[in-house]
Order: sequence, then C-alpha cells, then structure tokens
Amino acid sequence: MIQAFAAFEPGGELKPFEYDPGPLRPHEVEIDVQYCGICHSDLSVLDNEWGMTQYPVVPGHEVVGTIAKAGDNVKHLTVGQIVGLGWHSGYCNACTPCHTGDHNLCANAQATIIGHHGGFADKVRAAANSVVPIPDGIDLESAGPLFCGGITVFNPLVQFDTKPTDKVAVIGIGGLGHMALQFLNAWGCEVTAFTSSEDKRKEALSLGAHHTLNSRDQKGIEAAAGRFDLIISTVNVKLDWNLYLGTLKPRGRLHFVGATLDPLDINVFSLIMGQHAVSGSPVGSPLTIARMLEFAKRHNVRPVIEKFSFDDINEAIKRLRSGQAHYRIVLQR
Amino acid sequence: MIQAFAAFEPGGELKPFEYDPGPLRPHEVEIDVQYCGICHSDLSVLDNEWGMTQYPVVPGHEVVGTIAKAGDNVKHLTVGQIVGLGWHSGYCNACTPCHTGDHNLCANAQATIIGHHGGFADKVRAAANSVVPIPDGIDLESAGPLFCGGITVFNPLVQFDTKPTDKVAVIGIGGLGHMALQFLNAWGCEVTAFTSSEDKRKEALSLGAHHTLNSRDQKGIEAAAGRFDLIISTVNVKLDWNLYLGTLKPRGRLHFVGATLDPLDINVFSLIMGQHAVSGSPVGSPLTIARMLEFAKRHNVRPVIEKFSFDDINEAIKRLRSGQAHYRIVLQR
Repeated sequence: MIQAFAAFEPGGELKPFEYDPGPLRPHEVEIDVQYCGICHSDLSVLDNEWGMTQYPVVPGHEVVGTIAKAGDNVKHLTVGQIVGLGWHSGYCNACTPCHTGDHNLCANAQATIIGHHGGFADKVRAAANSVVPIPDGIDLESAGPLFCGGITVFNPLVQFDTKPTDKVAVIGIGGLGHMALQFLNAWGCEVTAFTSSEDKRKEALSLGAHHTLNSRDQKGIEAAAGRFDLIISTVNVKLDWNLYLGTLKPRGRLHFVGATLDPLDINVFSLIMGQHAVSGSPVGSPLTIARMLEFAKRHNVRPVIEKFSFDDINEAIKRLRSGQAHYRIVLQR
Repeated sequence: MIQAFAAFEPGGELKPFEYDPGPLRPHEVEIDVQYCGICHSDLSVLDNEWGMTQYPVVPGHEVVGTIAKAGDNVKHLTVGQIVGLGWHSGYCNACTPCHTGDHNLCANAQATIIGHHGGFADKVRAAANSVVPIPDGIDLESAGPLFCGGITVFNPLVQFDTKPTDKVAVIGIGGLGHMALQFLNAWGCEVTAFTSSEDKRKEALSLGAHHTLNSRDQKGIEAAAGRFDLIISTVNVKLDWNLYLGTLKPRGRLHFVGATLDPLDINVFSLIMGQHAVSGSPVGSPLTIARMLEFAKRHNVRPVIEKFSFDDINEAIKRLRSGQAHYRIVLQR
C-alpha cells in the first residue's frame, strides 16, 4: 500500500490517503519519495482549473527519490539509484513525437497527477523511461523543482538553439523566472529581467541578470526596441504583448511557458515586419531533463527553495497560494 | 527624364508624371521596364493605408526589364541583362540583417514605392544589389509577380526549413496562394488548400493542391486535428485562428504573410501544448529571390496573370480592386 496525501474535491484540503498500486508492471519503477516540490500546476489540478482532475487527486510532480523496485523489463535503472520524476510519468512510445525524442509533446503521455497518483506520498510509480537519474553532485533537497519548473524554462534554449551570444529577456521573476535567469547566465547569454519591484530587481541581478527593465515603464520598454533574440514569458497575466514584440530583434521570438489565460492580442504586422515568432512549449523530454541536470551541476544552477515537512503539507500549499513563496516550495520526508 | 504614372492624393487616379532621377549613383542601376505586376500593397500605398505614402507616388514593385545603365561600382550586372526588382530597391548593407543575408529585414531598407519612384514608368532606378537577374527560360511576361507575391510565399519554406515530407496548408487561394500551391507541390510536400468556393477548390487542385478543406466547415477543420507541419495564411481577414492552430502537428507553425489588420486572438494554451509557433515574414532577400527563380524555372512555377497595357493602368487597378483578378495583373509595355 502507498501512503499518500489526496484532495477529494476542488480546492479541498489534503488528507492522508492509502492506495494499492497493484502489481508493478514490467516497464515501471517504484520510487521512494524523499523530496517533492510543489508547483503552481499542482494548485491548478487541485482546484480543477483545467477541468481534467480526477478525484481523489494525489498531487506532486517534482519528485526526488530512490528506486525501490524496478519492473522486469527495466534495464537502465537499478534499485537504490537516485532519480527524479516530473510532469510526465509515461509516454505512448509510438507516436511521432515519441519517435523524434519529443516525448513531452506526446498527446497520450501520462501526466503524473492526472488520472495517476503523484508524489505527495511515500512512494510513486512511473514508466522507467520517464524517470531521470540525478547525477552525483546535484543538491538533492533543491533538485525537485528542476523537474517541472526548471525544465520548462531550460527546454526552450534547446528547442530554439539559443546561442551564448544571444540577448535574452525573462518576464516574471518567480518560481520559473528565477531558474531561467540562472540557466541563461550559465548559457553565456546577455540576460535581462523584466520586473516591477525594486526587491526583485536586486535579486534578479544576483541570480544572473545583467540588466533589468521595469515592466511597468512603457517608455523604458519602447527604448529597448530591437534588443532581444528571445523573450521567455513565465507570467500568467495579460501584458501589452505588442509592446514586448517591439523589443525583439529581427527573427526574434516571444516564447510562452506561463499559461496566461487571456488571448494574446498579437498584431500581425509586428510579426511580419521583423519575421517575429510567438510560441509556447510544455516542460521537456527525459533526454532534455538529463542534459539540464548535467548543465545545472556544471554551473551550479540551483532552485531557491523553502522547505516544509510532508506533515505540514496544507500549510505549504497555503504558502504557495499566498504568492509569497521564495521561490519554490519543497516537501521533505 | 523618366516617364511615369503617379497618384497625387490617396486613392487618386494615376496620371502621367515626368521626373528627373538625377545622376545615376555609383551603386545603382537603371532598368528599362518591360513588365510590371500590380500587387495589393500597391493599392495600400496608393490609398495611404499604412500612413507612409509620399505623394506623388509612382507604384509598381514587380518589375521585369533590362539594365539600361549601370553605375561605376556595379560589377555583377551588365547593360542589356534581364532583371527583376521587387519590394525593396536598396538596403543599408551595414546592419545585422544585411550582414546575415536577411536584407528583407533591414530596418532601413528602401521600399521601391515609398519615398522612391517605382515601376509604373518607362524606367526605374534601384541599388544594384536589390536587383536580381532572371535566368533564361523564365517566362518574362508572368515573372513580375514572383518578385513580391511569389517571394513572399516562397521565403517561408527557406526560412523554416520546410521538408518535402511535410504536410503544408495554404489559407486563401488568390494572388499569393495560387503561387504557394505551385511552390509547395514542387517542393515535394503534401499540399492542402483551405478555400470556401467550389470553383477555387477545383483550381486549387489543378495548381498543385492534393487536398482541399472548406474554410467555412468548422467540423471538417476540427477533423484535420494535428495534421499540418506548416500553415501559410495569405488572407487579410479575421479567422478563428485557434481553430487552425488545432490542425497543426506538434512543433507546427501558423505563418502569416497576409497582413490581417485584426489582432490574432491566440490562445496561449494552444501554443504551449503542442509547442506551436505563430509567425510572420515580409518578402525575401535578393539571394532567396535568386534561388526562387531557379526553382520556379526547374519546376515551371508560373504566376497566372491577366495582362493590361500601361495605357490602361487605371482600368487595371480597378480590376485588381474588384477582387476579380485571376490571379495577378501585369502591365506590359
């Protein structure tokens, strides 16, 4: 039996919940959970914001732990190995994205916390090829957030072939943005943070930004016309996107990893004149996660976290909901 | 003196207009105009739709003719050579896009018909490196539209590395779309035309489309979910763009070459889930035009045109305004 924490209705408190995962399937592993980050998408699923939640729901998809059992067909992971598990806990392995290494774009991928019990538990099951070994030297207690928030901001650099000579801006210095600044600085780019508060401005500089721009200063943003190769937006609020498009170089890209719900009122002329692109992407493939971990280790990229005990899980969630978390929350056993 | 046709106010009739182009500058050529296409953007400039027109305006930026004079510094073009001239008649040659071969993205490029007198004339001047030789074997009387409409739909295939194995759709089977279908068929792609009329459906098939989809049939479009690598939109009307985003494969792109004036109400979730992109581009560089001409020659891609004499220029413009032109109009001497 697995001892988990589950919510039984939208927005409900998490309560102890025991379930029988059944026999371990040949391609699966079972992970002893040591740490689990809490991500904003855990809240979205808890609250059924996307209309896909299946209750009881066991959230948690930024898992760090140890392989406890491995199915008969699992050859590349061994019991006792330290691994992580992110948004996906399985793939169809047969579609075009799976064949091309874009497992995170598999339309039939299994989300770790939708129709599957996640990492707010003592153990979690997953397909072995969705689980990624954590290299020696990565700080384990802060590693969880790399598996969802981290890969979400790292993946675009790989997807769009970002060059160390590029100038890149990040909109929103929070759970995702604070990792984006670190990755971009280590990637060699000139890094600009868009932020509106003086406190965050200083922190952005300490996290790797070379410059900051006040996201409420329209004239300042206009003065940055034609400056960026890439802008990564991590926010979920509506901004004047055409204003930001104006800060792109020719061939520049405004890339969304934050799921702003309002439609983007994009001006076609802004796209055409500078051959600009507006795009989005979800998390990253297991291979890209593995590359990210190596890169994070080499460059000491590390999520800034607040720690909570699993016993204080509801308090931890309240803290995340408050918007005050600095920057990610990790539950520890 | 150059004998041209000019409008003197927004929407005004074209009238004979003589101007002195001054001494030929060392990097320039003068072209004897044989043919000149009329493009929708000639109408936009005539009518000052974009607020940039300088009157008197001499439209015409799909020029086919013969080099009449070449400046002292011009080494790669010779008098008597047959050439074409498109939207741009000069570049700054010093900015990043110019250095990287993206001359069409040069922010200081000289538009042939804005602050410069275009091809509705017996002669037109241009910087030599904006002028492209036309290979033997290209039909000259229909070649003009390749230099603006043609390159506009050909360029995305080069920019985004379209593969012959890709499935590509074209929205709008008109002046641009009818060339896009031909190029895409020759490129080896599976080609789908979105069109709403039965007549255009048949023509689309004859121009190179393998399939058609009715752009007014929402259910039919929904049934094409996940089908296209690339959609090229040539229309300037508002459609349900999120519906079209749904027909893209993972990593698919919805690319705009038609300047629809309404903002694109793009849903961020549609971008994120499939790693989709929405983008735009303007015409193409001289090098890409040269490649297009070679490709058009090898594959017999040819604009479908209606011919008018320069003396009937106002009638020709009326015909284009009527929306009945089939598909492009070319003025001939």
